[in-house]
Amino acid sequence: MVPDSRRALEWPRVSSQPISRFAVPRLDSLPEDVRARILAVQEKSGFVPNVFLALARRPEEFRAFFAYHDALMDKEGGLTKAEREMIVVATSGANHCQYCVVAHGAILRIRAKRPLVADQVAVNYRKADISPRERAMLDFAMKVALESHAVEDADVAALKAAGFADEDVWDIAAIASFFALSNRMANVTGMRPNDEFYLMGREEKQK
Amino acid sequence: MVPDSRRALEWPRVSSQPISRFAVPRLDSLPEDVRARILAVQEKSGFVPNVFLALARRPEEFRAFFAYHDALMDKEGGLTKAEREMIVVATSGANHCQYCVVAHGAILRIRAKRPLVADQVAVNYRKADISPRERAMLDFAMKVALESHAVEDADVAALKAAGFADEDVWDIAAIASFFALSNRMANVTGMRPNDEFYLMGREEKQK
Amino acid sequence: MVPDSRRALEWPRVSSQPISRFAVPRLDSLPEDVRARILAVQEKSGFVPNVFLALARRPEEFRAFFAYHDALMDKEGGLTKAEREMIVVATSGANHCQYCVVAHGAILRIRAKRPLVADQVAVNYRKADISPRERAMLDFAMKVALESHAVEDADVAALKAAGFADEDVWDIAAIASFFALSNRMANVTGMRPNDEFYLMGREEKQK
Amino acid sequence: MVPDSRRALEWPRVSSQPISRFAVPRLDSLPEDVRARILAVQEKSGFVPNVFLALARRPEEFRAFFAYHDALMDKEGGLTKAEREMIVVATSGANHCQYCVVAHGAILRIRAKRPLVADQVAVNYRKADISPRERAMLDFAMKVALESHAVEDADVAALKAAGFADEDVWDIAAIASFFALSNRMANVTGMRPNDEFYLMGREEKQK
Amino acid sequence: MVPDSRRALEWPRVSSQPISRFAVPRLDSLPEDVRARILAVQEKSGFVPNVFLALARRPEEFRAFFAYHDALMDKEGGLTKAEREMIVVATSGANHCQYCVVAHGAILRIRAKRPLVADQVAVNYRKADISPRERAMLDFAMKVALESHAVEDADVAALKAAGFADEDVWDIAAIASFFALSNRMANVTGMRPNDEFYLMGREEKQK
Amino acid sequence: MVPDSRRALEWPRVSSQPISRFAVPRLDSLPEDVRARILAVQEKSGFVPNVFLALARRPEEFRAFFAYHDALMDKEGGLTKAEREMIVVATSGANHCQYCVVAHGAILRIRAKRPLVADQVAVNYRKADISPRERAMLDFAMKVALESHAVEDADVAALKAAGFADEDVWDIAAIASFFALSNRMANVTGMRPNDEFYLMGREEKQK
Repeated sequence: MVPDSRRALEWPRVSSQPISRFAVPRLDSLPEDVRARILAVQEKSGFVPNVFLALARRPEEFRAFFAYHDALMDKEGGLTKAEREMIVVATSGANHCQYCVVAHGAILRIRAKRPLVADQVAVNYRKADISPRERAMLDFAMKVALESHAVEDADVAALKAAGFADEDVWDIAAIASFFALSNRMANVTGMRPNDEFYLMGREEKQK
Repeated sequence: MVPDSRRALEWPRVSSQPISRFAVPRLDSLPEDVRARILAVQEKSGFVPNVFLALARRPEEFRAFFAYHDALMDKEGGLTKAEREMIVVATSGANHCQYCVVAHGAILRIRAKRPLVADQVAVNYRKADISPRERAMLDFAMKVALESHAVEDADVAALKAAGFADEDVWDIAAIASFFALSNRMANVTGMRPNDEFYLMGREEKQK
Repeated sequence: MVPDSRRALEWPRVSSQPISRFAVPRLDSLPEDVRARILAVQEKSGFVPNVFLALARRPEEFRAFFAYHDALMDKEGGLTKAEREMIVVATSGANHCQYCVVAHGAILRIRAKRPLVADQVAVNYRKADISPRERAMLDFAMKVALESHAVEDADVAALKAAGFADEDVWDIAAIASFFALSNRMANVTGMRPNDEFYLMGREEKQK
Repeated sequence: MVPDSRRALEWPRVSSQPISRFAVPRLDSLPEDVRARILAVQEKSGFVPNVFLALARRPEEFRAFFAYHDALMDKEGGLTKAEREMIVVATSGANHCQYCVVAHGAILRIRAKRPLVADQVAVNYRKADISPRERAMLDFAMKVALESHAVEDADVAALKAAGFADEDVWDIAAIASFFALSNRMANVTGMRPNDEFYLMGREEKQK
Repeated sequence: MVPDSRRALEWPRVSSQPISRFAVPRLDSLPEDVRARILAVQEKSGFVPNVFLALARRPEEFRAFFAYHDALMDKEGGLTKAEREMIVVATSGANHCQYCVVAHGAILRIRAKRPLVADQVAVNYRKADISPRERAMLDFAMKVALESHAVEDADVAALKAAGFADEDVWDIAAIASFFALSNRMANVTGMRPNDEFYLMGREEKQK
Repeated sequence: MVPDSRRALEWPRVSSQPISRFAVPRLDSLPEDVRARILAVQEKSGFVPNVFLALARRPEEFRAFFAYHDALMDKEGGLTKAEREMIVVATSGANHCQYCVVAHGAILRIRAKRPLVADQVAVNYRKADISPRERAMLDFAMKVALESHAVEDADVAALKAAGFADEDVWDIAAIASFFALSNRMANVTGMRPNDEFYLMGREEKQK
């Protein structure tokens, strides 16, 4: 029931610390579709990731942001969902984005069922327990994140040699690019990762 | 009439050089809304900016990209449209994005009715013919583009002191962030600026 | 009993992955004092942190390394032990040292009884849940780590203004300097953090 | 006639904005040879590029500067004049020198009869419409501009492989070096590009 | 005789300038072993290098520092003592550490009996009069000093190809790492090189 | 007598190592004025600094280079000659130019009669034995050398506050700019400092 779910979303309870430099709108002030998306994620995850609350301040941007996110992160295709999250964690580490490292680190642990890899990739992907394919993917993603103006044919050729198709090259580039946007918004707003993320997926290995 | 418009859009004619590292889809293979958007911009501008063609390869991302773009660049609000374009040109210069400097340089010249300012801002905004307000805006935008992790209260306070409201701060940050994405996609795809952009708005002053 | 303890330390079992680029010596080949130190840490922690195994290859350097470490990290003084570990995590993040971020992240969580702070500080100390005193401490430590040649009177004065004494200034500088050494050795040897560290201290808050 | 020419040079009219941080000398206060050079360029170009006015403040340096410039830029030799200007535009872009990008961008457009290439090279020479020979030339010039201490035999060998002779290597290095000087003087003085430069050479293609 | 030696060590005479930002302890206030070490170096060198005085403030750290130093710099092994000092000078130059460049520059001149090489290596080792073996050694040492997180198998392979053994690789890495520590402490304390170092070893060649 | 002087200049004897990547012309092949300048410096200094030999390959550039040099370095004015050389040493250190650090380090020692200051300034001017006036001068010169595009009014104001006049500001900027050129040419040609420079001026203090 929507009324109950809405009550469940007691935002001030989410954290005693501000989750954004900007005021966060009240749930009942939001357009229906934005509110519905937030309630849906709450029901699925058991909590509302703060990125939804922080960006809800601007419904049009909210819609475009999550449409873009979903088009890149939830699609089927040559890259696994874990690989997509790995790109996010590595490039967000390079951009010193606390929200994305913590939140997507949790998702990476869960999707990859590898409880150590997120912390490794966030600090130094060169030393992480990753495959040669993942290494090639991250070499390219980091170049897109940090010096995209220098990307050239040889970079794409290295990806192809590692088994990636044209569409995969686009995906890697697009994910690194989208999180260039996301990291900056999180950094400027001082977006706070929910406490829940820190522990998620860490016990996977023991299963 | 759509059939005529469609014929008018002879893509191979647009340029003898490739406009993207990735194959560009045929117009008649595109979803109706994507095609309509492309034809609309063609009718308005007299040509199709290559960003529409290059991104049409991924209709979902295309829709999210332009929805996001329009939400930030075409809205009313505290920042003028010329100011928004100035943020794009300055940060795209810092990211060495040829497409965005050339294309948005043209739009900046037209919107600001200042034919010199785009070339100045693209090379070194500190030496450009800009007002103290524009200077404060670009100082912040460049920090978002280049080291967003270091943005702090003092940076926001400097914007406030220059007369910007909370919503303006968000706008500046969001535009610099969105073009962090856009610049990277243009750099990786090798997106080619249309020849038309180079001359647009350069004669404004003589009027 | 030493024989039993020695058996307990079945090194190949520690990890199925190499813990260093260099061969790790057998425990029974080590000088008595080095072996004793390793067994002592094993009995205290329940496992042997890989830094002990990796550095045991060079007993003289091993002794100097841990004597230096203990002189800085285990002493009483103006800085709490949690503060010392916080310096380690922040500067090791800046140096992309996986071993030190993971291992000292665990120790920081335990010593500070703050399960979130290590992950925050490792990615971006400016956005971490830290006090103004901790912020001043990390500002200085990061300058020592990244551009010590530019440290000047004003940097020391800022520490003094935050309440630090002369001895504290030395401590902060010395810890950041010692881990400049430690991070480099860990990076070059490819020192692998023990799996145990990743989860340690994460539940503290719920107690 | 000198008196007429002198009247023609109404300096305050050149721009309503200051052309240098430093006072610009009156034409009639200049040594004869300096004044003659300025009048000559005015008669040839129809206006006096501001670099002549800004540097005239120091006649000895003025003479050495233009003697050096002419020795490098106006000589015959392995490099075409357009290639020489292309080096100037690329390295001046890297040095964020507004005067040199705008002024030499105009000259490059005219000499190369390629109206788009200057704007492309100024932003990102890797994406410009240039030949492999030009690319090799600019790779070397940029290394001289940005990290000359790292130039080694392999860099020279790459130029040779692209068909450049020993004298060409010197020319490329000397032009990048001379504009390292020129860019810095323009940046410090805040040298303002004349309005005339912005439009010059942009219509070439249509001819 | 200790009393006489102690008198010989008139610390205020060493320099009219402070040798450290921190107070330097009186010789007679030091633990016996620290004092003995200082007197021994004075008798051997004819003066007390300021690093001994500056670090004596912390006897435990003093002992660990010099134990580490001696383990790396005074040992026998694959690297000559001159090669070890060359690593110190090159990496200390990169870290802008005045004390280490001046003091170890002197030791390098003496140990290598090459009076020019220290000044060359401190400024730009790529242009120094060094052998291919020394060049490979310094390439690796500089990578450890400046971006150790990026050290990979290929870097070690390049050292092996230049004739270095596994133990040599460790030595090079350990020396560059130890002076990462040493340089930072010298930079923060403002450690002053003794005047004596500047001239030592400069006449070697004429012998 | 020219014939005798010419014999005295036995170039291959100057060094057993090449002094430039490019061939050095024979003395008797040079234009009279270039040869005269070289012989004059030889008679004054007792040897020919290699920069004269390396640049003689291009007489026109040689003339402009030394005319520029003399206009900046040998003039009377607000800056002492020692101050001018100090700018050269500091900025050449930042540019890793071995020739200029060694050669102008010698001249600085002699002109300032301070045998230690050149080595200090070359490594880290912030830690050198220099006056507040010299410090302000070098702060500005280093900004010109390393990020001239960011020079602004506040930088000039800081110089004025330290007692420098407008003409001094120009001088500092022009010297840092000229050696931006000079350092690059020396780095690319691999210009070798003469052995004589290393010892010059080191004994001054004892006089």
